[in-house]
Amino acid sequence: MTQPQIQTLDAFDPLARKRDQFSIPEGLIYLDGNSLGVLPKGVLGRLEHVVGQEWGTDLIRSWNKHGWMDLPVKVGAKIAHLIGAEADEVVAADSTSVNLFKVLLAALKLRPERKVIVSDIDNFPTDLYIAQGVNELLGGAYELRFVKKDTVEAAIDDSVAVVMLTEVDYRTGYRYDMRRVTEITHQYDAISLWDLAHSAGAFPVRLNHCGADFAVGCGYKYLNGGPGAPAFLFVAKRHQQAAIPFLSGWMGHKAPFAFTPEYAPAEDIRRLTVGTPSVLGMSALDTALDVFADVGMAQLRQKSLKLTDLFMELMEPLCAEYGFELVTPREPERRGSQVSYTHPEGYAIMQALIDSAVIGDFRAPDIVRFGFTPLYLGFADVYEAVERLKTVMGTGKWKEPCFQVREKVT
Amino acid sequence: MTQPQIQTLDAFDPLARKRDQFSIPEGLIYLDGNSLGVLPKGVLGRLEHVVGQEWGTDLIRSWNKHGWMDLPVKVGAKIAHLIGAEADEVVAADSTSVNLFKVLLAALKLRPERKVIVSDIDNFPTDLYIAQGVNELLGGAYELRFVKKDTVEAAIDDSVAVVMLTEVDYRTGYRYDMRRVTEITHQYDAISLWDLAHSAGAFPVRLNHCGADFAVGCGYKYLNGGPGAPAFLFVAKRHQQAAIPFLSGWMGHKAPFAFTPEYAPAEDIRRLTVGTPSVLGMSALDTALDVFADVGMAQLRQKSLKLTDLFMELMEPLCAEYGFELVTPREPERRGSQVSYTHPEGYAIMQALIDSAVIGDFRAPDIVRFGFTPLYLGFADVYEAVERLKTVMGTGKWKEPCFQVREKVT
Repeated sequence: MTQPQIQTLDAFDPLARKRDQFSIPEGLIYLDGNSLGVLPKGVLGRLEHVVGQEWGTDLIRSWNKHGWMDLPVKVGAKIAHLIGAEADEVVAADSTSVNLFKVLLAALKLRPERKVIVSDIDNFPTDLYIAQGVNELLGGAYELRFVKKDTVEAAIDDSVAVVMLTEVDYRTGYRYDMRRVTEITHQYDAISLWDLAHSAGAFPVRLNHCGADFAVGCGYKYLNGGPGAPAFLFVAKRHQQAAIPFLSGWMGHKAPFAFTPEYAPAEDIRRLTVGTPSVLGMSALDTALDVFADVGMAQLRQKSLKLTDLFMELMEPLCAEYGFELVTPREPERRGSQVSYTHPEGYAIMQALIDSAVIGDFRAPDIVRFGFTPLYLGFADVYEAVERLKTVMGTGKWKEPCFQVREKVT
Repeated sequence: MTQPQIQTLDAFDPLARKRDQFSIPEGLIYLDGNSLGVLPKGVLGRLEHVVGQEWGTDLIRSWNKHGWMDLPVKVGAKIAHLIGAEADEVVAADSTSVNLFKVLLAALKLRPERKVIVSDIDNFPTDLYIAQGVNELLGGAYELRFVKKDTVEAAIDDSVAVVMLTEVDYRTGYRYDMRRVTEITHQYDAISLWDLAHSAGAFPVRLNHCGADFAVGCGYKYLNGGPGAPAFLFVAKRHQQAAIPFLSGWMGHKAPFAFTPEYAPAEDIRRLTVGTPSVLGMSALDTALDVFADVGMAQLRQKSLKLTDLFMELMEPLCAEYGFELVTPREPERRGSQVSYTHPEGYAIMQALIDSAVIGDFRAPDIVRFGFTPLYLGFADVYEAVERLKTVMGTGKWKEPCFQVREKVT
């Protein structure tokens, strides 16, 4: 595609107007919204109000006056809208890992006689770690059937309690067929648990359409809620009465302010909340989600595919010349909103590219990863990103010693 | 005590200088710092930096550049200093309830053959709820020996795995003798778990001096970290290698960024962290804690006792005339930094008092509760608070219908 064609794409992009709602550093091309979304402009003002007026002035009265108590369900309802759930099926709370722990325990309890948890060995590690911790806690009674993607379906049988998968692979960007896998899961009367870390806000997720049972997801990637934003969890309406909140804190009690010594879970999704909600984080996420209010998710997906298609097209000469290998499926249905390549020098190349003001990220052992957030990226950004990578490769900039030193990143 | 004497107390108060570091609404007397601490002035600027510069501009690079990764241990070390622990024995994470769940499981695992958990039936409900959830999760194998305070010691025997208590009672302000109870706990080779919700930042806690094994606490009360601030947990050094993190998320992994599928806990206190830290909340708490940097905890305690002594003295005529009954022990060793009374019309009286710009709070069924934070309260505030309560009672203001309507508060 030529530069004038790309300019045309931007000129006719119905989502181009959204970019102005984000604070993006001048000259920076940010392809890491799948790790930490950029700052929506409204967030700072919201936090100034929360800190100065709500906390600073109204103090304890704000629990009622400013609706602090309801933030988890209010934010949950906004997320529900993006993931194909009902407003009362989602709540914002804790971290993704803690939520996974809660819903995995609840899901296992629905199939007490079964002792197998199926997952993808390439799942994001925290998902696998949580399953390991749960198994250790329950006396090692479970078989953790962690397999490669191409054998996940075959691994599901009638010994399986829960099939726990992340819809989009954090490294390759591979996207499961949620409907198909959930159907197979249900054929064997097992429970499905989906991690939407790289799905929510990236494209239209359709939890109820797919028949999903449980889900969790992250607030700080495509939802732009800020570093360490509260995460969320989903429990299908049909399971809510039976979903036992083993992490039974007072916010999940049906009457938290009755201060009775006996735990009794809330009737609704609030039962899976635990302690006092993080008001600063919840408020930031609440405002961040407003960016989606006038965005059609189908439209978002359409742009996401165009952006990633363009990126893959422009990268083809670099693949041929410098040995990048595409690991993201080309088929639209099988990928999220990121594009990944392997390259043996991936780490140093990504450091040099970041130094050239194109931020993507690196995932061990050899993956360079580019996330595309349709709300704030244009087609010219994609073109320019590839141009800068071309320069990094052409000049050999990545070979400079400073780019070889590894530091931890998230 | 007379008004001139009270003025003298303020004039010679070495902590009077600290008030200027807090943002306190004009005319308001805030006696609810044991529920939500007031805003330290430095917090807003810190958050503006975290949002504008760190998140908004430096984005994902801030995990290293601005030390986001280290916030949980950095904040933990600051708290350790206030509670008589070593810097590497405390970490800030999650909510108090989630932390209780984590350390209770770890503590129980240290005494696998024992099946009794001792607690105080008047403990803050979430503590009791968490024990109930843990027991249900572990198949109901435990006896939950929840007893009245005066029989806690007698309830400890060699069948007991864990003695789980909140040092200061949230309703009455009664303070356990941590050293004595911990010693009795250890005589029976049981494990002690202390909840410091109403202790940390209120007076010098001496965890290691008392031989405590585990502890948790709250960031938004006397530590002034803001609504829903991250909580903290303590594991005595001698238990850290054996404390199993059943809630095994990636942040507790010994190499979170190696992305290996097998969980292996960090060697240190970080093993009890789980998901991505809440950077906004952690940053606010981090700055809030700086207020304590030049404060001697012994000095803080001294002022706390003077403030509460004065309050009790000034309240005596109101007790006699209006039927308030003191439920907080008078003995300094047996109380925290709050004073509570029962009154059958406590709810309405507190609402009317709040309307008179003295904020305390009410706890069911009949307790009016006043928290005294020595960092931002003066002796004249205590005097004025009692004067306003006198007016509320003398005019019968509390009988107005608007003060009778109950709403949920925290």
